[in-house]
Amino acid sequence: MNIDGVPFRTIQVDPDDGWRVAIIDQTALPWTVSIVHLATVEAAAHAIRHMQVRGAPLIGVTAAYGLCLALRADPASEAMEQAAAMLAATRPTAVNLRWALERMLARLRNTRSDDRVAVAYEEAARIAEEDAAQCEAIGRHGAALIEWAAAAKGGGRVNVLTHCNAGALACVDWGTATAPIYMAHARGIDLHVWVDETRPRNQGASLTAWELGRHGVAHTIVADNAGGHLMQHGAVDLAIVGADRVTRTGDAANKIGTYLKALAAHDNAVPFWVALPSTTIDWTLRDGIAGIPIEERAAAEVTHLTGRTDDGGLVQVQVTAPDSPAANPAFDVTPARLITGLITERGRCAANEAGLLTLFPEQR
Amino acid sequence: MNIDGVPFRTIQVDPDDGWRVAIIDQTALPWTVSIVHLATVEAAAHAIRHMQVRGAPLIGVTAAYGLCLALRADPASEAMEQAAAMLAATRPTAVNLRWALERMLARLRNTRSDDRVAVAYEEAARIAEEDAAQCEAIGRHGAALIEWAAAAKGGGRVNVLTHCNAGALACVDWGTATAPIYMAHARGIDLHVWVDETRPRNQGASLTAWELGRHGVAHTIVADNAGGHLMQHGAVDLAIVGADRVTRTGDAANKIGTYLKALAAHDNAVPFWVALPSTTIDWTLRDGIAGIPIEERAAAEVTHLTGRTDDGGLVQVQVTAPDSPAANPAFDVTPARLITGLITERGRCAANEAGLLTLFPEQR
Repeated sequence: MNIDGVPFRTIQVDPDDGWRVAIIDQTALPWTVSIVHLATVEAAAHAIRHMQVRGAPLIGVTAAYGLCLALRADPASEAMEQAAAMLAATRPTAVNLRWALERMLARLRNTRSDDRVAVAYEEAARIAEEDAAQCEAIGRHGAALIEWAAAAKGGGRVNVLTHCNAGALACVDWGTATAPIYMAHARGIDLHVWVDETRPRNQGASLTAWELGRHGVAHTIVADNAGGHLMQHGAVDLAIVGADRVTRTGDAANKIGTYLKALAAHDNAVPFWVALPSTTIDWTLRDGIAGIPIEERAAAEVTHLTGRTDDGGLVQVQVTAPDSPAANPAFDVTPARLITGLITERGRCAANEAGLLTLFPEQR
Repeated sequence: MNIDGVPFRTIQVDPDDGWRVAIIDQTALPWTVSIVHLATVEAAAHAIRHMQVRGAPLIGVTAAYGLCLALRADPASEAMEQAAAMLAATRPTAVNLRWALERMLARLRNTRSDDRVAVAYEEAARIAEEDAAQCEAIGRHGAALIEWAAAAKGGGRVNVLTHCNAGALACVDWGTATAPIYMAHARGIDLHVWVDETRPRNQGASLTAWELGRHGVAHTIVADNAGGHLMQHGAVDLAIVGADRVTRTGDAANKIGTYLKALAAHDNAVPFWVALPSTTIDWTLRDGIAGIPIEERAAAEVTHLTGRTDDGGLVQVQVTAPDSPAANPAFDVTPARLITGLITERGRCAANEAGLLTLFPEQR
């Protein structure tokens, strides 16, 4: 991701001290680019739970670095296992979180406690590097779809719709759903992105719009309600979204509302693609709707939101009838039958077990 | 509609002076019940354009009274026609607006200018009374659906989902989509309403939730994104929405996002009903997607919203990335194939021409 032309990563070890973990506080975006330095595992867990970092891949990397911070305080096995369990419990839906922690533990359980801190930082850095590389590969495999759409329109502007933020901010770099967009943009394809606002936390309006704007990609924010209408009228050439967990059969859990866009895409013959690194795949699950736990978040995320007043101050306001309760399921599951295909770091495939196994034969 | 137990109408001639038109300023809800007295046709047009009044039936009645106010200033034919044209241009999608004005003009063109004011008030009052009676009839015909759902659940709580505000606030009384809810509630049916927030103007969160709460109906506000997930998990027994224009073939234009909910209902075999007075039917149109003009409203409705701070003050805040543009289509069209049926003042029917003609044979 470039911020106003400068390459940037969403998470990195502080180059000055070599151990604290620097993140962008995403709850401060789009108003302020605020870098937070995580110094304890508790701070890392807080950052995940309160969505200072969010997005399945970034949550995984943050958890890995959180374990590094825990080991600095106490490298003993018992403390390490407790810290990992605490980090794993911060968010229930994304599978990358548990995947990253399992990978860290697999490496660290066989490491002497004196060496664990160094090994942990090394492994966390490797996870981060791999994520960036995977997203770049997703970009290559997905950019072709945008290029084909451009060719089919005789070089006319390609309109891509995306939901939530599966952008660079959700990952270490590039993003998942945005990687094909950035790659196609770099190749000079004329494209424009419809950015779903993504209530209740507005990750589209505040994060995706912000990063596309900073990177120089044409885009327009729309209410989540608008996508079906846009598709009915030919204003969307393809949809690309991310995922928080994908079953081995191709069902995809993603931000609440994704399922509605997939239905509209299917109803209007608009290709609907899900972009994901393979760390997002839960190979143990076959039925996403029955099997993927859906996080229920606080009602206050629906009833209140933070915005900027005319004088530049940030203020939290209630936006719903004061005495009315609210519910806030954070994700939904899009059945594989509505998904045109998956874009992974190894290439594109059909959203089903056979498709995934052609790319990941080791999972047979 | 009852407000805390007191019957209330959303529009009425001021009983004190006998001519000004009293409305609830819906832009002040849910925070303040502010009654505005319209004294000129310009004020009436402003109230429609800026959505102090909204909802297809209420727009029609307000326009009728607006014409009364115009005639008080100048009862000549030319001024009358100009006022009607000005009122008709305030909102493009709802057909009731033009229907009400045509009905007024048909009566008034054959009336001596000296008598026009009195005749206009009489006709506007009749339109208002008929709307209230139609909504009550819609309530009777729709309440049966909720009673059947309750019976099918062995008396268990019935969950109804609705979108936007097709409530009493959108009409003179009762509402369209809410009339069956109020009627079933009065009959002692245990029910609960999922209220879509309805971005960007939040008519669900601010109006529907408010009136259901004031009337004592159990309800929960959800982001527009949540409805598909709720339906996937059996949490919605039926959906009832209103309409701004319905074609003779049963396509229904309603608040943006209705189409997405209809798709989800169809995908999960949840009955999806559209409630409307017959004044909402455009008998001249056969193809809703091609034929119904969709109002594009200001981007500021997406980028900014008004809420209440902790200290009780109202403040407008920006909620989107500051440099990002936004688009704001206000309605979408749900194809008849996704609609289980229509609930009109004459009864229920299939959402197609044959169904409508069984209830309205005079339109053959």
